[in-house]
Amino acid sequence: MQFELTKEFIDQIREDLELGKSTSTLVQVNELHPADIAEIFDNISAEEAKQLFHFLDKEKASDVLIELEEDVREKFLFSWSPNEIAETFIEQMDSDDAADMLQELPDRKKDEVISNIKDAEQASDIVDLLNYPEDSAGGLMAKELIKVNIDWSILKCVKEMRKQAEDIENVYTIYVVDDRERLKGTLSLKRLLLAPSESKVRDLYYEDVLSVKAYEKSEEVASMMEKYDLVVLPVVDELDRLIGRITIDDIVDVIKTEADKDYQMASGISEKVDSADSVGVLTRARLPWLLIGLLGGILGALVIGQYEGQLQIYPEMALFIPLIAAMGGNVGVQSSAIIVQGLANNSLGFDSLFARLGKEFLVAILNGLACSILILIYTLIFKDSIDLALTVSMALVLVIIFAGLFGTFVPLMLDKYKIDPALATGPFITTMNDIVGLFIYFGIGHLMYNIF
Amino acid sequence: MQFELTKEFIDQIREDLELGKSTSTLVQVNELHPADIAEIFDNISAEEAKQLFHFLDKEKASDVLIELEEDVREKFLFSWSPNEIAETFIEQMDSDDAADMLQELPDRKKDEVISNIKDAEQASDIVDLLNYPEDSAGGLMAKELIKVNIDWSILKCVKEMRKQAEDIENVYTIYVVDDRERLKGTLSLKRLLLAPSESKVRDLYYEDVLSVKAYEKSEEVASMMEKYDLVVLPVVDELDRLIGRITIDDIVDVIKTEADKDYQMASGISEKVDSADSVGVLTRARLPWLLIGLLGGILGALVIGQYEGQLQIYPEMALFIPLIAAMGGNVGVQSSAIIVQGLANNSLGFDSLFARLGKEFLVAILNGLACSILILIYTLIFKDSIDLALTVSMALVLVIIFAGLFGTFVPLMLDKYKIDPALATGPFITTMNDIVGLFIYFGIGHLMYNIF
Repeated sequence: MQFELTKEFIDQIREDLELGKSTSTLVQVNELHPADIAEIFDNISAEEAKQLFHFLDKEKASDVLIELEEDVREKFLFSWSPNEIAETFIEQMDSDDAADMLQELPDRKKDEVISNIKDAEQASDIVDLLNYPEDSAGGLMAKELIKVNIDWSILKCVKEMRKQAEDIENVYTIYVVDDRERLKGTLSLKRLLLAPSESKVRDLYYEDVLSVKAYEKSEEVASMMEKYDLVVLPVVDELDRLIGRITIDDIVDVIKTEADKDYQMASGISEKVDSADSVGVLTRARLPWLLIGLLGGILGALVIGQYEGQLQIYPEMALFIPLIAAMGGNVGVQSSAIIVQGLANNSLGFDSLFARLGKEFLVAILNGLACSILILIYTLIFKDSIDLALTVSMALVLVIIFAGLFGTFVPLMLDKYKIDPALATGPFITTMNDIVGLFIYFGIGHLMYNIF
Repeated sequence: MQFELTKEFIDQIREDLELGKSTSTLVQVNELHPADIAEIFDNISAEEAKQLFHFLDKEKASDVLIELEEDVREKFLFSWSPNEIAETFIEQMDSDDAADMLQELPDRKKDEVISNIKDAEQASDIVDLLNYPEDSAGGLMAKELIKVNIDWSILKCVKEMRKQAEDIENVYTIYVVDDRERLKGTLSLKRLLLAPSESKVRDLYYEDVLSVKAYEKSEEVASMMEKYDLVVLPVVDELDRLIGRITIDDIVDVIKTEADKDYQMASGISEKVDSADSVGVLTRARLPWLLIGLLGGILGALVIGQYEGQLQIYPEMALFIPLIAAMGGNVGVQSSAIIVQGLANNSLGFDSLFARLGKEFLVAILNGLACSILILIYTLIFKDSIDLALTVSMALVLVIIFAGLFGTFVPLMLDKYKIDPALATGPFITTMNDIVGLFIYFGIGHLMYNIF
């Protein structure tokens, strides 16, 4: 039943758009889910997108607009006047989607669009929402919700709810408030359905309700909804007054974005990009980390430069430079990734820094010994040099231990000082471990060759 | 309003458990959300957990059991008899949670538990669910749902729904089926609420309903629910008969787990682990990738060994070995991560492999030129050797281009042959790029020093 976009379908749409009149394909597009239509928009030019848009129903058109990628939407809205935006799109939208879209417009155009919204209540809701930072509970919430007073009867409830429900697509929960609009609890639709109509809200509602303050960070909201398996979460102001609700679909986006961000950070990409972005954007997102790597490489060259004399006498030491560097990097990334994920999932528990380092120490020793015994055997057999074999294998154990401890320590420290611990993963830790690894390797080499 | 677990609270619980009688702290625990209680269980011993369990209400206890981490639950269930498990836990659970839990038990114990379930319908539901693979739509769904016949009146609907709703915690959607149980559409609670009671289901229901077949993979289900912002998705069998529903909270877990898996793969961790796992588990999860790195290092040593003569004449070439290796690794990880993420998010569009490699080529040239000009200037100033400067900078451009193309190509190929593209990220691609990078570096060095 799910729609699968094909290249043939896109080509057909393009062809039909050139004809400039409604065809069976364009009618078919109009019947698709907005998310599917948005996918089509990602694959055609801005010019074609504008043409296609005119074949969509008004309500469908604004749903599609919400689903578009931010950059596609920006290009697209550019050619619409503030009045057109207000009439064609904003009026069919939920307050949170409208506010999100307005946030992307230049300030002046934003104000003009708002002054063109005819429904005064909607305009005021949107202005309210624009005051909250995008990454806060207030920035995620919608104002549309169903609320009933704690003193009403079920009969009055149903009557009032019919009115309120007209503007709302999905009724998940009915909120119960007191005369001062303070959130008191919830009334489940199931209870309402099962209750005799003469009963009172007061007797039926659940008092236990989780809520979140409007200034709470969106990651906090996400981890809360995830932990408690919530589908919808009410938002209150400082006086506990109910001001909006956050639905799980917005939170799924937050979770996805968070995970993507950590993943990109670990891969050395400094901005949110995807493969559809322009060459310029992709280059800019990748260059910063490469420059850090470059600096690390130069520092590495300086370290080796210190031991150039030694290298001239024992050139075979050069053979294992990549091995030492790579292993330090790998171990560092592994241990920091485990910590970063533990912090993100709140699963670290209460172990002290010391206990954590102790555990990593054990893991590193085990892995280090396993690897260094293998490399010892290899060098003894194939290189026939006890000095080299001992140098490489001893250096390897120490490098693995250092890299493991360092990879554990850095993200914990960053987190303690409220810096995103994911910064520790990826090129940064790899680069640091490369340099320290070289020091260890040549330092041990220096000792070894002087002893034997 | 959200509960925050502290070390002090844990210590207090432990102390009170030793007293062996109910205290105000233990009463307080019983009032917490199951997810919060599960967090407490993660931080106390199995012995203490069992004690604490006896202070919980029966229904709370089974909710907590569902929330526990798999390994904690396994340890915990070990000491309960099949009969106790059936009576104390299974009977209060939804079918999907019960099936998930049973799946973790040894086969014999699983069968014994099932034969001890008193409610025949529940037992049959659970057995049905156990037939589906864990990572399929059937494995994710619950059997509990509300369905009405298309020919019923609203009055009959409400009556039937009251019966059905008793077993169900959250009513999201009412499904409409025909006489053969085939899914025809949905009836929103809102419509039901607003409809006059003499109307018929047939006149009120929405025909447009997305559903999923039971054998569909869970990642497919996740990407569908994410794309269409669904809170609940009905599951049908091959004959389109409604057999269950999947709710978004289970999907949030799938999304999280997928993202965690890709992240761990990119970080060189081969099993699902978290920092609370034992030293043995952590070591085992990390060793495989380290061994690949080790093998890569040995291959790198072989490559350098080929040029040992050259290195003896121009020992300064050793200085930039780490730089070349690191940059190849970084670029490869960046480009493969962008592809892996694009594949995971279905955002790659329809560009051909050739177009994609062409774009990566441009990005790599830009980044490569930027980096190599910097390193050219550095080596000219500080190393005062034109040969070395040209060798390093030319090798760097080529390494960056190769690594970029390779990092783009490999995940796309893996995906084409239905292998998880995330395998391409992390140590594998880094190691390959290290080796090829060394070849390029020494190859160019060989040419350079022979020309000048």
